[in-house]
Amino acid sequence: MTETSLGTRRPPRSGLGELLTVFRGHESLTRSDVAEVTGLSRATVNQRLEALLAAGVITPADGQAPRRGRPAGRFAFNAARGILLLADIGATGMTAALCDLSGNILQERFTPSTVTDGPEVVLPAVQGLFADMLAATGHQPDHVEGIGLDVPGPVDFEAGLVISPPIMTGWDRFDIRGWFAPRYPCPVVVEKDANAMVFGEHRLVHPDVANMLYLKLGTGVGSGIIANGQIYRGADGAAGDIGHNQIPIPDDAAEPLCRCGNTGCVEAYAGGWALVRDLQAAGLDVTTVDQALDCIKAGDATAVRLARRAGRILGAALSDAVSLLNPRVVVLGGQLAEAEAHLYAGLREMIYRRSLPLATRHLQIVPSQLGRRAGVVGLGYLVADHVFDPVRVEQALSA
Amino acid sequence: MTETSLGTRRPPRSGLGELLTVFRGHESLTRSDVAEVTGLSRATVNQRLEALLAAGVITPADGQAPRRGRPAGRFAFNAARGILLLADIGATGMTAALCDLSGNILQERFTPSTVTDGPEVVLPAVQGLFADMLAATGHQPDHVEGIGLDVPGPVDFEAGLVISPPIMTGWDRFDIRGWFAPRYPCPVVVEKDANAMVFGEHRLVHPDVANMLYLKLGTGVGSGIIANGQIYRGADGAAGDIGHNQIPIPDDAAEPLCRCGNTGCVEAYAGGWALVRDLQAAGLDVTTVDQALDCIKAGDATAVRLARRAGRILGAALSDAVSLLNPRVVVLGGQLAEAEAHLYAGLREMIYRRSLPLATRHLQIVPSQLGRRAGVVGLGYLVADHVFDPVRVEQALSA
Repeated sequence: MTETSLGTRRPPRSGLGELLTVFRGHESLTRSDVAEVTGLSRATVNQRLEALLAAGVITPADGQAPRRGRPAGRFAFNAARGILLLADIGATGMTAALCDLSGNILQERFTPSTVTDGPEVVLPAVQGLFADMLAATGHQPDHVEGIGLDVPGPVDFEAGLVISPPIMTGWDRFDIRGWFAPRYPCPVVVEKDANAMVFGEHRLVHPDVANMLYLKLGTGVGSGIIANGQIYRGADGAAGDIGHNQIPIPDDAAEPLCRCGNTGCVEAYAGGWALVRDLQAAGLDVTTVDQALDCIKAGDATAVRLARRAGRILGAALSDAVSLLNPRVVVLGGQLAEAEAHLYAGLREMIYRRSLPLATRHLQIVPSQLGRRAGVVGLGYLVADHVFDPVRVEQALSA
Repeated sequence: MTETSLGTRRPPRSGLGELLTVFRGHESLTRSDVAEVTGLSRATVNQRLEALLAAGVITPADGQAPRRGRPAGRFAFNAARGILLLADIGATGMTAALCDLSGNILQERFTPSTVTDGPEVVLPAVQGLFADMLAATGHQPDHVEGIGLDVPGPVDFEAGLVISPPIMTGWDRFDIRGWFAPRYPCPVVVEKDANAMVFGEHRLVHPDVANMLYLKLGTGVGSGIIANGQIYRGADGAAGDIGHNQIPIPDDAAEPLCRCGNTGCVEAYAGGWALVRDLQAAGLDVTTVDQALDCIKAGDATAVRLARRAGRILGAALSDAVSLLNPRVVVLGGQLAEAEAHLYAGLREMIYRRSLPLATRHLQIVPSQLGRRAGVVGLGYLVADHVFDPVRVEQALSA
């Protein structure tokens, strides 16, 4: 008998990883609660609770008065035992955050930065924000139990590598984990930005929605997918690429060139960079996506017309995605989602006109509740799930 | 403490359901194998094996000579203890099959039928094939441990109901389970056809591919999705609807009307019904999709031109789906997939031209290996997974 003939061989299991997952899913639990939720015997519950207490990963919670026999006592996941550091790296700015082990954000920083400057410039800037937040909260580097970064490009999630990014010069297969290793002895999670964002909206705003799509309207156009309750990354980490769908517009003389090299892509009309280009061509003094957004908000006629066109194009692409994925919720996020009404009218119209009724009958199309924080919020949950994955906990506690 | 405050409450677990799942995943196992795979103690292994043997769900397998001490003895999932009945109900014909409890097909029947005749006509025809196959194999109705049906329309999988089908007159929310209940006392699984087909290709042909798309080219155009190793059904069972994406063709004077009421849908060019319509308009004597297929195979100039156009339209829609889902494999199935070369050239060209390189670099575009059997093969695995779901087994064996 060989090991491969039997598939994955499991080590003897202590059940501690799974029990910690139960605590992470509840505010606090008594011994009786644990027995009831898990179906374990009282003896087993007591034994495993002692192990988790000894490891410091759960802690006695604000107690109620003991009732009879063994003290009832409540126990809770020890979210304050350490911290996580997170950075949402956008095309033109980054948000960094420090959160507890449950993903609750305790500190946050924003700074302009240019992702195309490459990892040797951007990662030191990230580290600067991390050090700043550690100092502000009185934490040491060895309190850091996990690090999470998201980037505007495809990611090999298992390997923690940015792969063939269309716009992120210098990041292709750069060893991000290796860069952080000497600074923090902890796991490093790397994720595509829209995946972190959809995960944040899913866990904090729409926890009961198993199938949702997050449309990121920033410098580029991308999306993140929750399928059957999980982040859907696809075979190469490239899933969610909706920005390069080609939506021909009947009356458009010449389809605009996209930065991918094709013409007529969604992003070539509706991406922030394309709006900046088109506003400049119309003679407006605009160089950033935020300035383009300001023009739309101020009601500039050209900007509003371009935003409405962008809405219709996005709606056409979204209607195809809605037909294929049948999500319950579509979240509109990213800077340009703040253009609101000018964007949404055409977008909704196209979806309801083109998709079949069954897919749109219960569909909710909503703005992001987390706004520019969606990335770091999602990263917090993602890194916590990774650090406290039952198999990892099992290995750590049995070592 | 209320139950809801703790989420789902688990009953005490015997572990029998999970152990049976281990047996279903292996040809046969000794007691030592089981201990090694599960990490359970020998005493626990012996106790659970006895329970599964007593229930008849595992059986001693062709033994090797005992070595030392307790006989080594091999045990295997008892796939011959009962049977499953399956029916893949297409728009114009149905395939029925009888398989063992591992999903191995033992009998198969095909008969023309018209899904729009409604369940009161189609289900008796299904039952006729089922009774015929039972008689042919000497099985009684109480040997049937599960029934599976797939249909060309959206399905509420949990409820086992066809929901708002665009073409299936009379099936909307028809109580399929209730219809079979007096005949067979067993679970009934109802699935969308393309989902059953992609599951068949996944489990039998591409078991290691976690993300794949099955394009069904029949009377209509639909697709089935495997995401993160699971069937992806979407929020309303409507996922995979790629046939009503609208792909405008620049030089097309008037976009053809689709049977959904919109114009310019993929299906209105590339669906079997649309090819029949266009061949008739060109003066050919064609009334069925199979006849249209024969025209293409025979090299009729009009039919070949229409097939090539269909390939380009399908390729455009598929390239958007490939960008969004980043599958490792796209399987082309359904009757019209047999048109092969005439369809594939334009289809491949459009995908590789439009999708970004990362999504196509490792993409495989392959014809269905299972052909017209994909539906029943997938149903067999699906029903077996449902009947032997660990929670269901747990409940059955502890009752």
